[in-house]
Amino acid sequence: MQDHDQSQDLPARAAALDATDPIGHARTRFHLPPGIVYLDGNSLGALPVCVPDAVAEVVLQQWGTDLIASWNSHDWWGAPLRVGDAAGRLVGAAAGQVAVGDSTSVNLFKCYVAAARMRPHRTVVLSDPGVFPTDQYVLEGAARLAGLQIVHARPDEMAQVLAKRGEEVALVSVSQVDYRTGELWDLPGLTRAAHEVGALCLWDLCHSAGVVEVGLDEHQADLAVGCGYKYLNGGPGAPAYIYVPHRHQADFDHPLTGWHGHARPFGMEPGYSAAAGIARTRVGTPPLLSLLALESALTAYEGLDLAQVRRKSLSLTGFFLDCVRELVPDVVVATPLEGSRRGSQVALRHEHAFGVVQALIARGVVGDFRERDIVRMGFAPLYLSHADTLAAAVNLREVLAAGEHLDERHASRTTVT
Amino acid sequence: MQDHDQSQDLPARAAALDATDPIGHARTRFHLPPGIVYLDGNSLGALPVCVPDAVAEVVLQQWGTDLIASWNSHDWWGAPLRVGDAAGRLVGAAAGQVAVGDSTSVNLFKCYVAAARMRPHRTVVLSDPGVFPTDQYVLEGAARLAGLQIVHARPDEMAQVLAKRGEEVALVSVSQVDYRTGELWDLPGLTRAAHEVGALCLWDLCHSAGVVEVGLDEHQADLAVGCGYKYLNGGPGAPAYIYVPHRHQADFDHPLTGWHGHARPFGMEPGYSAAAGIARTRVGTPPLLSLLALESALTAYEGLDLAQVRRKSLSLTGFFLDCVRELVPDVVVATPLEGSRRGSQVALRHEHAFGVVQALIARGVVGDFRERDIVRMGFAPLYLSHADTLAAAVNLREVLAAGEHLDERHASRTTVT
Repeated sequence: MQDHDQSQDLPARAAALDATDPIGHARTRFHLPPGIVYLDGNSLGALPVCVPDAVAEVVLQQWGTDLIASWNSHDWWGAPLRVGDAAGRLVGAAAGQVAVGDSTSVNLFKCYVAAARMRPHRTVVLSDPGVFPTDQYVLEGAARLAGLQIVHARPDEMAQVLAKRGEEVALVSVSQVDYRTGELWDLPGLTRAAHEVGALCLWDLCHSAGVVEVGLDEHQADLAVGCGYKYLNGGPGAPAYIYVPHRHQADFDHPLTGWHGHARPFGMEPGYSAAAGIARTRVGTPPLLSLLALESALTAYEGLDLAQVRRKSLSLTGFFLDCVRELVPDVVVATPLEGSRRGSQVALRHEHAFGVVQALIARGVVGDFRERDIVRMGFAPLYLSHADTLAAAVNLREVLAAGEHLDERHASRTTVT
Repeated sequence: MQDHDQSQDLPARAAALDATDPIGHARTRFHLPPGIVYLDGNSLGALPVCVPDAVAEVVLQQWGTDLIASWNSHDWWGAPLRVGDAAGRLVGAAAGQVAVGDSTSVNLFKCYVAAARMRPHRTVVLSDPGVFPTDQYVLEGAARLAGLQIVHARPDEMAQVLAKRGEEVALVSVSQVDYRTGELWDLPGLTRAAHEVGALCLWDLCHSAGVVEVGLDEHQADLAVGCGYKYLNGGPGAPAYIYVPHRHQADFDHPLTGWHGHARPFGMEPGYSAAAGIARTRVGTPPLLSLLALESALTAYEGLDLAQVRRKSLSLTGFFLDCVRELVPDVVVATPLEGSRRGSQVALRHEHAFGVVQALIARGVVGDFRERDIVRMGFAPLYLSHADTLAAAVNLREVLAAGEHLDERHASRTTVT
């Protein structure tokens, strides 16, 4: 039952926004289980309906029947760069600059070490202490081997540090969207600031690719990585991509020198000689079932303009923030209210955040919890509606009103990814 | 038509050997395209019949319906170690010592750097110049970062080098089976020789796992890696495994410090702290479609004893060598004739090896070519018969007799994996 307040307008607003949504039809491209409002597409994207048949074809025909010949006849060999080009189109990278294969963590390692070698007289990596932990952990591992010094600064403090110590800085490493708060950092501005002092800038696009107009080429980003399983919907553990623009490829000298990155991989030569172009970022044989599932999944973006997708994303998160303000006004919002500073998620702070998330899941509203007090709601613009968005907020109000988040069933901790 | 020579006995011998093959029933566990004799299971194993349904279940139910909850409800989180234990059983590793996730190349990198740190006052890695190139290429990359010096010696010369320079050697790196000649090197003996001078020994099991009784624990191997897509039949690019025995785990300090290897991966803590046990070899999110396909594929080994599998393998390769001797006596065999020195493949040398392989493929006998002059035939004991083996040799005789290998259609080079 609704109160007699402004919230009565919310269903009407949701209906009106959905009725005029120019990409509302994309929802039919996804398999969405009935009765679920899925707000975790920023962690594991929903299954595109084209993927099961595509995977079955890879398994039964390509592997099962055509066997080893598929390396040529189905161009398995070309898949990392072919899928890389497809992913690249979503982040503003022209062809020949993106490869897909290893995990984000492994790709970060390549970038850190290669960046140190591209700026041999500089030893500082400027890194956001609020970034997703793997970026920090891998940087620790690379820094130890490559003799780098890690200096921490939040992205909005980095310009200041660069002004003081810029000449020491080899690399600025930033995630475009904060994985907890959903804050969108200034990719063009920070990239420019790094360039002004002669440093490189590496962008982790895990939480922005597919929902933000990234514009890697346009803004002259130096390096970028990102995973395939969030908004790109490539499936659990879908391989990650790495972007090295043409201008840096000849100098990109990374240490994971596997045979797929060799100039003549079938020459079986004794010494390593890096391939020309983005192919040099390849390492070993990529996981083809996962890689080709991602290739199929990326077709869910066909015919959609990233500007449209971004507008829909802002409409969803903006509407959710309105719903929160009207329905649960006491809840603290951790995400910037200005659209220009917001990715495609909304984070709420709550002292019982874990219990809130579990109680919502029990009601079919699937978001996730992030340490220490974050209720995280991801809004995948291709398959979510404003009606879903309102339903999430209404359920949140009901959970909090009934104290369901304090229920023993929901408050006990288990592993949640 | 057959000549009136000993070769008349070959069909009868094949039939008798197949009739008494104790693991002949395992063939029904695989999807084998009709009309094909598949001798490339040492490059891409055939499709186990259980895999398509298993993959479909992962895609439709686990990903499509259960979505993010599958990390817990289907234990995606535990998959790398669970599948690792299953792979470990095939190479003589007790539980808790094998993890599956990255590629063989990435796993080699972890091992090289970690080994250097486990022997900090030694700088030499003794490596086989005949090993599959990625092992050498990755070693180059790791050596440059970790300050290692690479010394080359064939496995049968390594004991001599160890006798002279043993105190400098941190690591001995060997592939158990030579990828070209199929020679099986002495894992127990070389491991012992390394230990006698205080060095570690790393084994690449890509060409031996699943067909040789490896016995990692029994022979006190220090480190091992291997891929999932050859005799383990995990599908194209199936993720690779890494073995670190319990006694070395606390000292295994590798540089790919991603969040899956953290002691508290969901703690989102600022600094890296390696997990206890084999979990510390984990890096980023593994490719789950590929990983769970491998898990299903490994069940094709259920109820089979590796000693039986090895006997069948030796019977197939031994019979093939007999067929070659009788049917194409002029062809040079590159593989050792003694069973104890032979993996599960037979390599033939021919100046037109590429054309020979292509002409055989055109007849439905699928082997592969390896630079510079090797015709490579892999014998997967779970799904090949002695009748297949004879058919391969008969076709080889006919190809050579008719000069099909010199035909323009077969002699022109394209990429072949």
